[in-house]
Amino acid sequence: MSTETAETAETAGDPVVEELRALLGARLSTSDSVREQHGHDESYHPTHPPDAVAFAESTEQVAEIVKVCARHRRPVIPFGTGTSLEGQVAALHGGISIDMGRMNQVLEVNAEDLDCQVQAGVTRKQLNTHLRDTGLFFPIDPGADASLGGMAATRASGTNAVRYGTMRENVLGLTVVLADGRVIHTGGRARKSAAGYDLTRLFVGSEGTLGVITEVRLRLYGIPEATSAAVCAFDDLEGAINAVILTIQSGIPVSRIEFLDEVQMDALNRYSKMNFAVLPTLFFEFHGTERGVAEQAEAVGEIAKEFGGGDFRWESKPEERNKLWQARHDSYYAALALRPGSKGWATDVCVPISKLAECILETKRDIEESKLLAPIVGHVGDGNFHLCFIIDPDDADEMARTEALNERMVMRALALGGTCTGEHGIGTGKMQFLLAEHGEAVSVMRALKLALDPDNLMNPGKILRI
Amino acid sequence: MSTETAETAETAGDPVVEELRALLGARLSTSDSVREQHGHDESYHPTHPPDAVAFAESTEQVAEIVKVCARHRRPVIPFGTGTSLEGQVAALHGGISIDMGRMNQVLEVNAEDLDCQVQAGVTRKQLNTHLRDTGLFFPIDPGADASLGGMAATRASGTNAVRYGTMRENVLGLTVVLADGRVIHTGGRARKSAAGYDLTRLFVGSEGTLGVITEVRLRLYGIPEATSAAVCAFDDLEGAINAVILTIQSGIPVSRIEFLDEVQMDALNRYSKMNFAVLPTLFFEFHGTERGVAEQAEAVGEIAKEFGGGDFRWESKPEERNKLWQARHDSYYAALALRPGSKGWATDVCVPISKLAECILETKRDIEESKLLAPIVGHVGDGNFHLCFIIDPDDADEMARTEALNERMVMRALALGGTCTGEHGIGTGKMQFLLAEHGEAVSVMRALKLALDPDNLMNPGKILRI
Repeated sequence: MSTETAETAETAGDPVVEELRALLGARLSTSDSVREQHGHDESYHPTHPPDAVAFAESTEQVAEIVKVCARHRRPVIPFGTGTSLEGQVAALHGGISIDMGRMNQVLEVNAEDLDCQVQAGVTRKQLNTHLRDTGLFFPIDPGADASLGGMAATRASGTNAVRYGTMRENVLGLTVVLADGRVIHTGGRARKSAAGYDLTRLFVGSEGTLGVITEVRLRLYGIPEATSAAVCAFDDLEGAINAVILTIQSGIPVSRIEFLDEVQMDALNRYSKMNFAVLPTLFFEFHGTERGVAEQAEAVGEIAKEFGGGDFRWESKPEERNKLWQARHDSYYAALALRPGSKGWATDVCVPISKLAECILETKRDIEESKLLAPIVGHVGDGNFHLCFIIDPDDADEMARTEALNERMVMRALALGGTCTGEHGIGTGKMQFLLAEHGEAVSVMRALKLALDPDNLMNPGKILRI
Repeated sequence: MSTETAETAETAGDPVVEELRALLGARLSTSDSVREQHGHDESYHPTHPPDAVAFAESTEQVAEIVKVCARHRRPVIPFGTGTSLEGQVAALHGGISIDMGRMNQVLEVNAEDLDCQVQAGVTRKQLNTHLRDTGLFFPIDPGADASLGGMAATRASGTNAVRYGTMRENVLGLTVVLADGRVIHTGGRARKSAAGYDLTRLFVGSEGTLGVITEVRLRLYGIPEATSAAVCAFDDLEGAINAVILTIQSGIPVSRIEFLDEVQMDALNRYSKMNFAVLPTLFFEFHGTERGVAEQAEAVGEIAKEFGGGDFRWESKPEERNKLWQARHDSYYAALALRPGSKGWATDVCVPISKLAECILETKRDIEESKLLAPIVGHVGDGNFHLCFIIDPDDADEMARTEALNERMVMRALALGGTCTGEHGIGTGKMQFLLAEHGEAVSVMRALKLALDPDNLMNPGKILRI
């Protein structure tokens, strides 16, 4: 790395940077471009570069870095792949970004117990590549090829969660560096345990505010005997959503059931060179035995027909399925491409499945009235959907309308018994809604934060105001 | 109630009792028999009666009781049905036992979303009776007809956990009275959420040490189209356990797969008037479509045969299945009946499935060498098994040998990557093993405890030494 000598004016003479450089040498960067890159995620939230970026190579090194920061009361911001969507990696109060990208070793695969342990920087695709000869896979798929540490930290879920659960259900244990540099191991390899407080679940979803996750123990699954995927367009949005609701209520164990509205389908056709009907559409995937998959597909086909769905377009070959899901995962970029030079403001909510049609239909009406460009996509089997506002952040009026519409949608979801975010997390973007959703319980979250991080150094300014 | 006037000498003039009596009238009891009954669970742990027992009828009332106790720094011990197994309800330092038995309302059933909300005193059987016309059921079944609040507090699991998970996976949210009497609501009705710290999972398994759970929101399931159960005896223990391991590793979605050793089968034949072979035995249950259940049964039958299993004895009628599972659930009482006047010391560990044979076989050898009477039963699909030492607590030598054998088993489980308790919890009985299992992480548990209960009033002396 050539960054060692590219020290910026602001950090010259910074004692934290000097101590860390002594520790890390070239693995500490203060170059403007590296700092800028680590100061933002994929969202519209403004960039806040850290004072320096430390490229850690082991848990012990992370602990050393955190200890230096603790001594100087300097914030610590963990960085995985930077694919979060609520500003989770921004260094709001300066500090040291710890880039986990070099902690990319798969430490252990226990095929007979369906578990593995990875360093936090291993990405989900890297893990699945590593597993390819074992007959096992890790199903959680938030779209981006995120790091597993980052996915644990943000309680990620995505398209497969309807069947396999989220990171909450699939993390068995963690190695965490605490705010004072101590290292703890949570959870374990047993499938269940009643031994003490569930620290694993406390750190999953804590967005780096309670400590730095350096290793993750995960549950694995056998690759299903049969997999098939299908696309089905509907006459209208209501029909598509009602088909989802009945599918879930019928207990059909679909592996993926994704909704894309006609705006998103148009964007996807253009961006991914597809030729789908520009209509509200569901993407399905079925896992199981040959017979089970056929049973599921038949049952879902009947439900779809009942609600105005057209014929299923089947994607049976693995490469066609991959193309389909890649197109789905590229939704965000496809939406951005609808308006060159724009930024995306992605937001998500999640409601009980019986409230999904009401929540989406009212939100769709809001969008139409607002004249904003905001395709809807969603992991609708969980009751989870996303808007992606395609905006010009310099247009104050557009930003104000976006903010108002987002707030209306979140408050609607809460009124329907839902949550202000199904999977993107709170970050800096949804702090006001956390209080609306959890009320007095937020004071308990604050007490826990202060118990583990009394100086508010671990990713400060995220989730909670301290 | 006639307890109002039965005040004991110790509590006369106790200001806490006086304040609570003003609040609760006859719903506060200081009678010796009520206090004694609330001072112990079903385990061998000694009785520690509380100063008084408060029969709460609402969350608000629990909050009032806790506030009185907080003001006087008097311990609070939540009491469900008293069926815990590690001394969780004993009032080690005196205090007020809050009996949740009258908070027995099912508050809400949302059939279309497969969730419900109950007061903490509702038992699992009561809930399932309430649900009988909805086509839904709540699967978690620890054997005892425990309260759902108590099951949440101890992270209960039991026979169905291999398919449906434990209370960890099936509690969607909680109402909790904190140590200072504030009331919080955790979680919600959405299937997933990334909104802040996972307080639900923190309170699940906290054994009353962080607050009093007063309401529980639970996940429900559709009653399977088909259910069948079978019993299969094996030539030897090793064969039975290896059949379990291969069943789980093959991904066959059995709903129950329970092991009972020949000592337990003998006890069960005597106690429940059954006529099973006195051999290591597996009890199975299969849930699914007619076709799915047949597929599962066939696959498991082949595996059993491979490992020396005999023919399957099928129990297809619901009443026969109930009789079978009742016999399984009565294992503890059946074992006690082997030695009239004895007490049971039930202990459990859980290991990765690949280590189950090793752990059970070595433990069996230990038992045989020790000359102790200790049948083995287990929810072996999870890698979880139990010993029930049938002991005379007044025989110091027997108690010492029991303690030594228990410790050897726990340390063996930990060495194999397991946990010191799969489902009974820490209570007072396994505090020393919590540290062996979790090391430095226990200090984090302690910090959380002190953050939420700085005066150590919530069920003190359980899980952690403060």
